[in-house]
This record gives sequence, structure tokens and C-alpha cells, in this order.
Amino acid sequence: MGEFDLIKRFFTRPTPNAVLGVGDDCALLQPSPGMHMAISTDMLVSGRHFFPDVDPRALGHKSLAVNLSDLAACGAKPVAFTLALALPAADGAWLEPFSQGLLALADLHGCELIGGDTTQGPLNICITVFGEVPRGQALLRSGAQAGDDIYVSGTLGDANLALTQLLHERQDIAGSPAVALDAPDLAQARQRLEWPTPRVALGMALRGIATAAADISDGLLGDLGHILERSGTGATLNADIAFGLLGAHRYSEATARLLANPALRQTVLRHVLSGGDDYELVFTAPVHQRAAVQAAALTSHTPVQRIGQIEALPGLRLHDAQGRLLNLDFHAFDHFAAAA
Amino acid sequence: MGEFDLIKRFFTRPTPNAVLGVGDDCALLQPSPGMHMAISTDMLVSGRHFFPDVDPRALGHKSLAVNLSDLAACGAKPVAFTLALALPAADGAWLEPFSQGLLALADLHGCELIGGDTTQGPLNICITVFGEVPRGQALLRSGAQAGDDIYVSGTLGDANLALTQLLHERQDIAGSPAVALDAPDLAQARQRLEWPTPRVALGMALRGIATAAADISDGLLGDLGHILERSGTGATLNADIAFGLLGAHRYSEATARLLANPALRQTVLRHVLSGGDDYELVFTAPVHQRAAVQAAALTSHTPVQRIGQIEALPGLRLHDAQGRLLNLDFHAFDHFAAAA
Repeated sequence: MGEFDLIKRFFTRPTPNAVLGVGDDCALLQPSPGMHMAISTDMLVSGRHFFPDVDPRALGHKSLAVNLSDLAACGAKPVAFTLALALPAADGAWLEPFSQGLLALADLHGCELIGGDTTQGPLNICITVFGEVPRGQALLRSGAQAGDDIYVSGTLGDANLALTQLLHERQDIAGSPAVALDAPDLAQARQRLEWPTPRVALGMALRGIATAAADISDGLLGDLGHILERSGTGATLNADIAFGLLGAHRYSEATARLLANPALRQTVLRHVLSGGDDYELVFTAPVHQRAAVQAAALTSHTPVQRIGQIEALPGLRLHDAQGRLLNLDFHAFDHFAAAA
Repeated sequence: MGEFDLIKRFFTRPTPNAVLGVGDDCALLQPSPGMHMAISTDMLVSGRHFFPDVDPRALGHKSLAVNLSDLAACGAKPVAFTLALALPAADGAWLEPFSQGLLALADLHGCELIGGDTTQGPLNICITVFGEVPRGQALLRSGAQAGDDIYVSGTLGDANLALTQLLHERQDIAGSPAVALDAPDLAQARQRLEWPTPRVALGMALRGIATAAADISDGLLGDLGHILERSGTGATLNADIAFGLLGAHRYSEATARLLANPALRQTVLRHVLSGGDDYELVFTAPVHQRAAVQAAALTSHTPVQRIGQIEALPGLRLHDAQGRLLNLDFHAFDHFAAAA
């Protein structure tokens, strides 16, 4: 099957929102009056962002999810996306589930595939996504103010917990990782790794409420760090609240007991604070907006937890429930410094 | 050097036209009133679209040029682009000339780099480009009408001539390709391969004049074929005019003599008609617009030649100056059927 047949078979669909969809030199969008267009692009590489043998349906989902997550962080409503795909071979048995996972999530968000490119090469997926946000209402990383509360959506660390354990198994390392989940709990954690939920509804609900936001792709500390850097502020986080953010606590009793082990505290905190691949939102809001944040969480059906405070003093501090400062030696994920 | 330093060092620049450029979860564009946004994406893969050891400055240029060429084909004015880049290593000695080649062309067209992604992986460059075109004035592939003239900008076939010869040399094939240029002529042909000129000014000048347009990336026959398919028409081309489109005719006397050799006629025609990598425009316009087409060519400083006629009868026919039909057995470039 040739390139053009491939595109037609799996990726040509009606595009009612676009002026012109797949099949011409360009797609055409008609931006709504009064709206800014939010644009983000992410490239996923085999062996780096996913295992080469990952379920193609999950990969299709995740490829778009990580992009929608960027729109969510801006409070933008998804409109459309383009897909550029390098494939070792034109394999319909792979492309069909890939396109199904991709387009199911696209449909859920009314985000139309309007164009793309297909070529032969080492597996590489590059999506560029377009959203709309009313002029002046985009959530930026730069708006955090001293005194603002810091919030995180959902749970953190499970994706990284699963990744660590899967890498351990695949690399045939003797023994188990420090935190080894049993099979059913690992399956749940792996779901978070492979089928992330972009927090689009929450992002849109936070327009006019949050002062700054980012999505957590490289780990909470790293992505909150971007907010602090661009806002010219610092922050203090409550490590005990952060510890409670690990979703795995709510899995089986065995896992809950394991994670409560004080000897593993540092390891668990590392998964939560700098694990990455969570695709939750970290955001800030003034104290007087606490009720509004809770309302946004409710209307968007997205759990939200307050985890700390923005401060004028630069730097990121972590304290426990007793107010004692903890030592921080974690780093954000760097694509040229660590292997996936 | 880490990912974030890399981005900062080579790719962070002022973005006066964008509401928000590199550095947040999304970039923000404010579309101009009355304008449609034209969007196109192209992915370039090492060993497929370029030689792994290609001059990185030329590669930076070409990566954006092939995208601007899509905007040109729609008659859109370039506004901005995103860049996603997979690199084997964070190599400043490669990134510096790459970014220079890329950004020099971007500056020439007032096209701002507003965002992107960088990751480790087999070299892969994915650019998504944004342009503006007044509502209803985009040049589409679907507008050709029976009786319209068919035009091509610039010259065709030189890029493919150079590519064929370079592949021949690199693969250490005994003897020479059928059409072997001497060194200075090859250098000129290679310039067309590695430093294509997107016909942006011509595309914009053809708004309201051309009925259909496409850029020639996969070969004239293939890309004209897209116009015919989407317009529900056929066409006849004058092969003698097409033969004259090969820019190499204007190189040295030795090359001109070589190309005029009747035994090579079929080979030369193949380079011209289905070579690819030309990044010229093929477009159609009603007969009464001939003067307007010439004026558009003049104001955009882009040579244009009339090469045939759109016809109601489906299919693509090639005849010589005497009106005799020639046999056509060329194919468009298919990324899964032929090696670059």
C-alpha cells in the first residue's frame, strides 16, 4: 500500500470545523473572532518516549494526549491537529489500531485531523495541535504571584512507577526495583503511563481563576520550576501532601502498605515530584479564589489538591507537615541527559 | 548541554508578530480579521529526504523551504512556524549552522519560530508552518476547469538530476548515470536540490487569478495529477515545452549538448516530469487571465511557462510539438515505494 492510499485509508475523515481538511497543500482554519490560536507541537520517538512494541492503540492515544495536555495548560479549547508520521513500513495491522486510538481521543475533544505527512523512517510521531482561547485569557507560565496557592490535578508518580518497573523487567536487572507493585497494581499504574488523560476541561474551567499553569510532562518539580522561573518567584511545597499525591496509594492494600514504608519515602517522593509523564496540571491561584478553584474542579470532574504556596524568595523549598525543610536533590527530565 | 539550554541558545528569538512565542506550553497567535489560517506540516528524515552528511545550513534552509512551498501553493503569506527536532546528540557544531540556515530563510519571509520540541533520536525534522490568506482566496487543488491553461514556475528536473548523480557516486555504481553533468554543472544542479526557493511571492500574486495550484515536491506529473483528481478533470501537456523546462539546458555548452542528445530524451523527460524536489508551483488559470499571469510572474520576479491545457476528459496526456501522443510510464514519488 502506497503513501497516498495509507493516508486515505486511515487518516482521511470529515472535518466539519475546518474550512479545508486533509488532501490539499495546506489545511485552512477559520479562527473564531476574539480568539487567540494556541499552538503546541510534540515529537515522540520510539525507544525514547515509548517502547517499540507498545500497543499501537495506546500510542495513538498518547501521541495526541500529550499535545492536548499543552492546550489544557493554556486553558485552550482543542480545535484541530496535524500528524506527521515516520514509519519503518506501511503496515496496516499497526496503522489501524494506531489511528483508532488517536482518532477516538480526537473525537472526544472535537479536535479534527486536518493534515499531515507520512514518510518512511525510524518510527517518529509529530503532532501539532491548535486550540482557541479568548483573547487575554490564556493561562501562561509567567503569571504566578507571591502568596498564590499552588495546586496539582489528579495524582502523580504512577506513570513513572510503572515505567521504572517495566524498564527493570525489560533490562533484565536482577531483583526488583525499590517499589515493586504486584501485577494488578502494575497494570493500573501502567494505564496512567500509556493512556494519560489530558486535563482539557479543567484548563478551560480555570480561565480567569488561575494565575499560571503548566502541564506536568517532565515531573512536578521541573514543570513548576518553569512557572517559577518565568514568574520570577519561588515556592514552598508541603512534602506530606505531595507524598499523598501518588495514586498507587489507592490501589491494593499490599501496595498501600509498601508505599507507607518509611524506608521508601525518598523513592516514592522521587516518583511523585520528578517522575514525569503524568500529564496533570500544576497551577497557581490567589487565595481568594479557593472556592472558584474547587468549583472548577467540580465542573470539570477533575480532582485538584493544594500543595503549597508561591513566595517572593526564588528557589523551590520542600517541607514536611511539621514545617521542617527537606533536602531536594531531584532533577527535571532532560531529553539529552536521561534515557526513557 | 541540556535540552532547555539548546532551545534557548539556538532557537529562542524575538517574535514580534506572535502574542506569545517559545517558552510556554503553547504559542499564541492572533489571526488577522478576515483571514483564513493556512497550515501545513512536513517531516524530513535522514537518509530519506537528505544525505546524513548534508551541510546542516542547507538542511535548515530546506526544512523550512519545503513547508513555505506549501503555503506558496495556497497563496498564503507566511506568519510563523514550529520546529520539532529529533537529534542523535545535542551537538552545537551541527545545530548552529542548521539554525542559521533555517532562521535566515525564516527572516526573509517574516516567518517567526514560535515554538517546538527537541528530543534525542534518529535525526528527524518536523516543521509545521502557518500562513494567512484572505477568506475565499486560497488557491486549492480542486479549482481547475476544462479549458484552463497549465503553468509551471521556474525550471524542473535539476534537483532530481543532481540527486541521481549523487546517489550514483555514493552507491559506488560502476560507470556514470545516463545524464552525467561535469563538476560545475553538477554543483549548480545540486544547489537546486539543497537550497530550493519557495515560490511564496508568486503564490500570493496568483490570488484571484489562478484557479488551482500545487507545489511540485513529488514530481510534476504526480502533483499535477493531484490537481486533476481533485478537480475532476484531465490534461494534455506539450512534451517539447516540458523538455525545455530543464534548467540544466542553461548551464555549460557541454551540458546543453548532452541534454539535446535524442537518445537521452526519455531520461531527461523523466527527470523533468516526475523527478521531484523541485518546489516550483504548477497552477492553472483561465485563458483570459494570460496577461494577469504574466503580470504576477513579473511582480514576483518568478519565471512562469505555459505547458498545457486542462481538459474535461480524465487522464494525463503528453504530446510532442507535432501533436503526436507520447507514451507515459512515469510515476509520482511514493515514500513507501522508492528510496531517496
